[in-house]
Amino acid sequence: MNYKMMGRFLSQILFVEAAFMIPALLIAVFCREQEAIYGFLAGIAVTVALAALLHLGCRNAVRRFQAREGLVCVGMGWIVMSIVGCLPFYVSGEIPHYIEALFEIVSGFTTTGASILPEVESLSRSILYWRSFSHWLGGMGVLVFLLAVSGHNNGFTMHILRAESPGPDVGKLVPRMRQTAQILYLLYILLTVLNVVFLVAGRMPLFDAVCTAFGTAGTGGYGIKNDSMAGYSPYLQNVTTVFMLLFGVNFSCYYLLLMRQVKSVLKDEELRLYLGIVAGSIVLIYFNIRPLFESTGEAIRHTAFQVSSIMTTTGFATTDFDLWPSFSKSMLLFLMVVGACAGSTAGGLKCGRVLLLLKSLRRNIRKTLNPQKVQIVRNNGHMVSEHVLDNTNAYLAAYVVILLASFIVISLDGLSVETNISTVLACFNNTGPGLGAVGPTCNYSVYGIISKLVLIADMLAGRLEIFPVLILASGSTWRRR
Amino acid sequence: MNYKMMGRFLSQILFVEAAFMIPALLIAVFCREQEAIYGFLAGIAVTVALAALLHLGCRNAVRRFQAREGLVCVGMGWIVMSIVGCLPFYVSGEIPHYIEALFEIVSGFTTTGASILPEVESLSRSILYWRSFSHWLGGMGVLVFLLAVSGHNNGFTMHILRAESPGPDVGKLVPRMRQTAQILYLLYILLTVLNVVFLVAGRMPLFDAVCTAFGTAGTGGYGIKNDSMAGYSPYLQNVTTVFMLLFGVNFSCYYLLLMRQVKSVLKDEELRLYLGIVAGSIVLIYFNIRPLFESTGEAIRHTAFQVSSIMTTTGFATTDFDLWPSFSKSMLLFLMVVGACAGSTAGGLKCGRVLLLLKSLRRNIRKTLNPQKVQIVRNNGHMVSEHVLDNTNAYLAAYVVILLASFIVISLDGLSVETNISTVLACFNNTGPGLGAVGPTCNYSVYGIISKLVLIADMLAGRLEIFPVLILASGSTWRRR
Repeated sequence: MNYKMMGRFLSQILFVEAAFMIPALLIAVFCREQEAIYGFLAGIAVTVALAALLHLGCRNAVRRFQAREGLVCVGMGWIVMSIVGCLPFYVSGEIPHYIEALFEIVSGFTTTGASILPEVESLSRSILYWRSFSHWLGGMGVLVFLLAVSGHNNGFTMHILRAESPGPDVGKLVPRMRQTAQILYLLYILLTVLNVVFLVAGRMPLFDAVCTAFGTAGTGGYGIKNDSMAGYSPYLQNVTTVFMLLFGVNFSCYYLLLMRQVKSVLKDEELRLYLGIVAGSIVLIYFNIRPLFESTGEAIRHTAFQVSSIMTTTGFATTDFDLWPSFSKSMLLFLMVVGACAGSTAGGLKCGRVLLLLKSLRRNIRKTLNPQKVQIVRNNGHMVSEHVLDNTNAYLAAYVVILLASFIVISLDGLSVETNISTVLACFNNTGPGLGAVGPTCNYSVYGIISKLVLIADMLAGRLEIFPVLILASGSTWRRR
Repeated sequence: MNYKMMGRFLSQILFVEAAFMIPALLIAVFCREQEAIYGFLAGIAVTVALAALLHLGCRNAVRRFQAREGLVCVGMGWIVMSIVGCLPFYVSGEIPHYIEALFEIVSGFTTTGASILPEVESLSRSILYWRSFSHWLGGMGVLVFLLAVSGHNNGFTMHILRAESPGPDVGKLVPRMRQTAQILYLLYILLTVLNVVFLVAGRMPLFDAVCTAFGTAGTGGYGIKNDSMAGYSPYLQNVTTVFMLLFGVNFSCYYLLLMRQVKSVLKDEELRLYLGIVAGSIVLIYFNIRPLFESTGEAIRHTAFQVSSIMTTTGFATTDFDLWPSFSKSMLLFLMVVGACAGSTAGGLKCGRVLLLLKSLRRNIRKTLNPQKVQIVRNNGHMVSEHVLDNTNAYLAAYVVILLASFIVISLDGLSVETNISTVLACFNNTGPGLGAVGPTCNYSVYGIISKLVLIADMLAGRLEIFPVLILASGSTWRRR
């Protein structure tokens, strides 16, 4: 294991994080939020100190990385980033328990949006900003950001991009990884700014608009109001519906659009599945919940918002969907599992992976019926390699194992089976709110410390797509050879 | 598609079924149960008539079968068998709705044990006998029986045995399939008789003992008392615990024991995992439910019984486990999913398949870390073929897809998420009782017709291990070429 290179990498991540805390500190200063100023100063100090120590300790590192080290690096990076990233919450006293502060920031960085706070309107503005910003940073990924700005271009960048980017396979947009990362971030910034503009045009205050856009862009879902998005005007809710859906699309589609390859975007199988599931779910849920609302328009608005919010694993709410009939709740759980597109900021299995699983299943049935015939799986016309298919199937197995194990451990806290299942699905798929005791009007403080640690691991495993976390947890990774 | 050969096969299945209805008819005559006599007479008449028609219509069939036809045959066989097998329930008027009667017999043949009856003690004895016997026949499989007695030994018997026998891979005990089937049935009969003897020794009436042994042997779970096994003595409950565990073991282990290959049985990885999970679950659940019982002995007895009953997917109950704490209920749901050993009469994923999934997952992680190194999966020291691994992974994908789809459809009936999840798990894994509205003191009559049909399909898919049912449902199977 190349510890020195890992140390250098971690130090860079920490420097970036410290830099990103500065705007939050300025907001705290501007709004004269005394406790928050201490919080951010402490956060920046510790982060910079740790970064400097790592930098000094790992000066003459050999620039050689293996796949294992790339995965370990990403896993460690996210953990270290969270350990210091929650310091502002903790030191400012706004979240007085460290584990709860850690839960909140991991939920932020992983774009889960599961909160332990019973209400958020009493938080200071700088803390609200940092909380929402964590979604934005985690959405596209801090390592992808680092790659875009720092210009490393050795062999290991691919390992890292692969480990941090969601989806069964990483498509390079352009031959050079650094440029790919830059294009991704530019598109991300562009869409976020557009989102802010549309929100401000609907008379949302700028601060609210920026925080909401952060939550939308990262498909995170931390709101700055206690009722999430319920209090905003129908226009603002509809804008958010549209942008949630946009951020659930594979970013390479936007790049292709810019390259005027409209046809290949329209033919993209994953995009079609994604939009098809969204449309189908809206129709089905609409008929199920129509009697709960006064007008057709209102029912459609809430349905479209909630379907988009849950399928893109954002987790904003305009209504308490825990009160919806059983069928609609089941559909929402299903959407949590499926998730949006690979290569977007969303969580869940991802439509692309679901597509591969179904195609691989169909191939297997055909093979049983015609053992002699060679069966090829195609995606958008291209052959999918056996390696990717194997990985996709292994992903499902790991997904089920982690789901079941977490479900059993958190059930020790004695909450209902419905609550526990939705909790695990909402955290592991990075959605946020669940059903029952963790429904959209409730929060995760009901769980004990052990459950919270399990859920923290689940959120990280969900965001990093399991393997980096599994490898971190495996004993053989740390054994000396 | 070789329809004539399929017809011949179906006619043989029906003749066997009609023959098995005769003992039930004799019981009805002996007990002077007028309505039941009509029921069984009608059942036998229709079954024989159908069998004769098929036999005459498909006389000169070509004896050539492909894998697809084998799978279709098994699926069709089980469906036809159920369609006529429920006639005694329906014609006797003891289950006045045909779909409910069908649900009850499918639940019987698939060894699920999920009942739509609010109480069973008012049923006539011959009907109770037929209900319990359906478990026994379905447990080892009617096609395996046919193979054992009829002596077909063409190429297609292997396809059929593979489709009807549970587990990721069919191990022939001896080179000839017919002898394998005979050995399996002899062991099955032997163990069942032993079970009856032990029960009668504990002063259980012979009729009760035979019915209970049928339910235990098939890991089915239909009881003949309203309180399942709760009213029987601790001795009888403990005997049943032991026999449920015995019927959850891969039958090839018993054959190896008879061949004095004790060592290879003791080293069997699946058996070790099975017994390990049973022991671990008993310990964990015991500590969780200890306060609910007066003495340690009582708590251990109920825990051991319930763990064995659920893990072997039998479904008998000595206590209302729906009242247990959340952790114990979650453990039971987990045990439903895992199930007992492949090659036993149990349902669920099966320990052997879980083992292969975990090994395949580990292999995949290793491959990611060392792409150059060839990684082999071994089971009991032997290399597992890629084909079996692919099949196992495809099985999990199909399992998850069917689970989610069924869960969503049955949620239209508006029952709670907890009830619906446990319903799907209990039916698909052939367990029987679930939680909430389908807990051990409740029944499945709460669901509507559409849900019942979905659950019937789930029970069949679970018993036949998905692929025969998927292939039956696929349009391309029935398209002419």
